[in-house]
Amino acid sequence: MQERFDEVKALVSQALEAAMASLPDSDVADAMRYACIGGKRVRAFLVIESARLHGISDDAALPVAVAVEALHAYSLVHDDLPAMDNDDLRRGLPTVHIQWSDATAILAGDALQALAFGLLADDAIGSAEVRVDLLRAFSEAVGARGMVWGQAMDIAAETAVEPLDIVAIKRLQNAKTGALIQFSAMAGAIMAGEDPAAMQDYARHLGLAFQITDDVLDVTGDEDLAGKRVGKDVEAGKATFVSLLGLEGAREKARKLSRSAEAALEGYGEDAGNLQQLARFVIERDA
Amino acid sequence: MQERFDEVKALVSQALEAAMASLPDSDVADAMRYACIGGKRVRAFLVIESARLHGISDDAALPVAVAVEALHAYSLVHDDLPAMDNDDLRRGLPTVHIQWSDATAILAGDALQALAFGLLADDAIGSAEVRVDLLRAFSEAVGARGMVWGQAMDIAAETAVEPLDIVAIKRLQNAKTGALIQFSAMAGAIMAGEDPAAMQDYARHLGLAFQITDDVLDVTGDEDLAGKRVGKDVEAGKATFVSLLGLEGAREKARKLSRSAEAALEGYGEDAGNLQQLARFVIERDA
Repeated sequence: MQERFDEVKALVSQALEAAMASLPDSDVADAMRYACIGGKRVRAFLVIESARLHGISDDAALPVAVAVEALHAYSLVHDDLPAMDNDDLRRGLPTVHIQWSDATAILAGDALQALAFGLLADDAIGSAEVRVDLLRAFSEAVGARGMVWGQAMDIAAETAVEPLDIVAIKRLQNAKTGALIQFSAMAGAIMAGEDPAAMQDYARHLGLAFQITDDVLDVTGDEDLAGKRVGKDVEAGKATFVSLLGLEGAREKARKLSRSAEAALEGYGEDAGNLQQLARFVIERDA
Repeated sequence: MQERFDEVKALVSQALEAAMASLPDSDVADAMRYACIGGKRVRAFLVIESARLHGISDDAALPVAVAVEALHAYSLVHDDLPAMDNDDLRRGLPTVHIQWSDATAILAGDALQALAFGLLADDAIGSAEVRVDLLRAFSEAVGARGMVWGQAMDIAAETAVEPLDIVAIKRLQNAKTGALIQFSAMAGAIMAGEDPAAMQDYARHLGLAFQITDDVLDVTGDEDLAGKRVGKDVEAGKATFVSLLGLEGAREKARKLSRSAEAALEGYGEDAGNLQQLARFVIERDA
């Protein structure tokens, strides 16, 4: 899997750069490019592998993978703002508002979202019908029913009197990080006009396993490796999977979810090997 | 025209509400709805009338008109933030970040943008091809080549040593407010698969006339009527069409542009009467 992962990572990073190559010169354009540097490209890999699994070429899937990464970059830039999570380090670099300003960070995020949606118009993706189907699903995943709703709940939880319980945290994370991960995994099925239910099932488990591992790494992780601040949740007294389940309980939960994610793809046979390996990778990573 | 204008205004305001009716309960959803209250709906009127002029029904144009107003609302919410133009009054109401918080304003703007793009997937608009064409043009209009670029230039100008000259201001405003106005006017032609050049020509003149009148009203206007702060540009010593051309010079320029906008539509004959009247209305308004 690692080889394929690296191949996709290079492909997507290059296409991301190309998508922003001809923007008019401005701090915003510079900040957009900066915000897209680095990143594990897990979501892009999900798009490309989900596509392959449904008989869709890398070339057709690439604009969708790039859209998902641009969208993810926008969400990080806005989440890092002082008015939101107030983070100064991301992917090993100063965050956009530190490097430029809050205004530039807000605008760069806004423009990355517009870019992401625009990429779905790319002819290479396939028929216009397919692109409209992707547009509809993408909008649902990122808007006030999906990612934005989850981030709003997360911020509200920080000032709430009662810490969240496990059901509320699952629901929150299923939206905040889960919605885009689910879209990414379903993209190939949508492009092929096939039922995305198994892919969504896989991604729901994967996304939660990913998030729980993030919570674990926030406690045990290395800041240099992570490229972002760790220990923030504990410091803020925030309810996380670790605070609710304990470190070992959280790890065990992530392992279970990872196995459920693998199982969801059994119908695809050996072709799903890369995605099943990804489900193991996301809980074994150290950053 | 007034009757048709009021009809479109009611239609669009109702459809905007409907588009947000089933959002999960949250401050962000409340703030999104709040941000869409009021507004002249000039852009929506452009979409609907541009559609009619090209043989496209109100029903087909409506989701596009709603998308444009949702997008416009997002841009106002973000522009009003303390990190940007720092405004506390908009459409006669406290701005979103005053009423809720900066975080909620950022997220509500983000979600309004996602909603706007998602509306372009609506089946009522027409063929999938048409929706993809609209998606492409919309993304260009609002991203780092269009609206966002213009706003970034506007903010940069505030701290620049040299005030902008007339060429730079025209270029800036042609992006900041012009790009979305041009998209709105071109939408009907795009939907009909016809050449949007005349509509773009009309909208380029209309948008500039609109902006110059805004600059005039910032000096002469009434805060209660405008529903937003006036006199801010003079206070900030910002270069505007009025500071560069004088009050009478700016008014004369707006009148000329309005006439050019009218002339651009001559090829459409009497059918273009409403849009030509709009070109007169935008320079005669007192708010």
